[in-house]
Amino acid sequence: MGNKQPNEQQLYIGIDGGGSKCRATIYSDDGQQLGTAVAGRANPLHGLEQTFQSMIESSQLALVDAGFAPDTCHQLVAGIGLAGVNVGQFYQQIIQWQHPFKAMYLTTDLHTACIGAHHGEDGAVIITGTGSCGYAHVGQQSIILGGHGFALGDKGSGAWLGLKAVEHVLLALDGFACSSKLTESLLNYFNAKNAIDIVEQLAGQSSSAYAKLARIVLMCAQDGDAVAIAIVQDGANYISELARKLFVLNPSRFSIIGGLAEPLTPWLDNEIASKISPSISPPEYGAYLFGKKQFLTQPIANVNHQ
Amino acid sequence: MGNKQPNEQQLYIGIDGGGSKCRATIYSDDGQQLGTAVAGRANPLHGLEQTFQSMIESSQLALVDAGFAPDTCHQLVAGIGLAGVNVGQFYQQIIQWQHPFKAMYLTTDLHTACIGAHHGEDGAVIITGTGSCGYAHVGQQSIILGGHGFALGDKGSGAWLGLKAVEHVLLALDGFACSSKLTESLLNYFNAKNAIDIVEQLAGQSSSAYAKLARIVLMCAQDGDAVAIAIVQDGANYISELARKLFVLNPSRFSIIGGLAEPLTPWLDNEIASKISPSISPPEYGAYLFGKKQFLTQPIANVNHQ
Repeated sequence: MGNKQPNEQQLYIGIDGGGSKCRATIYSDDGQQLGTAVAGRANPLHGLEQTFQSMIESSQLALVDAGFAPDTCHQLVAGIGLAGVNVGQFYQQIIQWQHPFKAMYLTTDLHTACIGAHHGEDGAVIITGTGSCGYAHVGQQSIILGGHGFALGDKGSGAWLGLKAVEHVLLALDGFACSSKLTESLLNYFNAKNAIDIVEQLAGQSSSAYAKLARIVLMCAQDGDAVAIAIVQDGANYISELARKLFVLNPSRFSIIGGLAEPLTPWLDNEIASKISPSISPPEYGAYLFGKKQFLTQPIANVNHQ
Repeated sequence: MGNKQPNEQQLYIGIDGGGSKCRATIYSDDGQQLGTAVAGRANPLHGLEQTFQSMIESSQLALVDAGFAPDTCHQLVAGIGLAGVNVGQFYQQIIQWQHPFKAMYLTTDLHTACIGAHHGEDGAVIITGTGSCGYAHVGQQSIILGGHGFALGDKGSGAWLGLKAVEHVLLALDGFACSSKLTESLLNYFNAKNAIDIVEQLAGQSSSAYAKLARIVLMCAQDGDAVAIAIVQDGANYISELARKLFVLNPSRFSIIGGLAEPLTPWLDNEIASKISPSISPPEYGAYLFGKKQFLTQPIANVNHQ
């Protein structure tokens, strides 16, 4: 317990980091899951130090879960899919990290999610959880769309649904829009009497705080609340259009993943919903496949010689 | 120079702090302006420490501008109007500040702006600069509306215009909406080739960065750009409705102040625009009047005995 050294075969770690959490999973050379753990958010847009800390913490916890000592990161080859690294400055900052692994291979969380969803095959994927974005990879071509982050973009995501709901409810409480069941539900959620009570609790909060409200918006929409329906339908229409834009590459498979995937599906265009295939493996498995492939084809990139 | 002590008569300082800047002005007992200065933003929503620092910095610079030593704050009675202190938690945190003044009297920036605009008389005021909000004070009654902060509310403000423009332009660059002159203008402003270039420069930026874009949106609207017109008109309609809601108190005077006041006026309902009276004095003068009145009627509140 805790003393076994992962030195008999090459071990891998797949890391999937985003706006809500960071999951790390240890895999054997033949893809068996040995241990997994979750730490806090890891989105460089929200802070580089926290991103590094969440990656280290989840890795150490995953090692312990696998029965290894937490200080054996240096024996692992890491495949990492991170939100935000499609932005050049963040990619450079993460790649220059004095990481604790034997080798580190970095790409976007979209890319690793796509590899995972289609088990290494080409395909298209839409992620809609805290944020939203679309990715397709077919042959030598790839498309990346959306994913501009909270509160600029990420339409159809949990944080976007939450923000739109709060925006409307604050206008309604000031008398600029109609109150509905959604107003009542958000006041209850925040245990609030007025707009100020809500603003006070959301002051300085990140996208995750807004994403937590998505469940309420979806529930109100399901119950027929007109305001909630308008918000959810607007978000779902964007996701349908996002899918259509990815389909120009004719991907053989298409999946929607993330916490909003299932509840949003009934609101998508039928034509889009009918093309959804289940995601085969989770994003951290995609990160493992990515890291392993890179390590076997270009083993000296980002390698720690210690 | 710098050695004159402000001890012959009671001196006052009026401080107006908001999302973009903090202005402090020294007044004599009979309301003559002796010196003024500006420091960085002072909105507790964006950080308490920076708020305190901006208030101290602007006060010290104003003292120097008036020909006094910068360490003579303890001789000044301060009237302070701050954004965000309509939120109870921020009001409490500011009021507990170990302030450097002889006495400190705190209220919202809306209240002091209203007092200034109408030179101490009752009235209604809409502030639309970086943020937006409305305030009316008639007799014993007052109304405060909007002002929920970026990016939750503040419709019709500079930051709101900027955010809506960026949202649209990012959707347009991804092919989800029509490109227009606004797209081109924002790309030029950011010296950007694509959506990612814009996202990268706005990552982690505060409302002031968005408010800087308002000028571009207004210019495009004036040039007939349909997208910019739709955004500006939506914001202006909110401001018109905000005014109507303040008018229920039958204020004898109504002013619109802040950087967006003038450019937004042509977009307001005629009925509203025709009721606008010029603002008589700036918010910091309102803060002085507020502080002086409080000091003369309840001199022992928030007084430093040192």
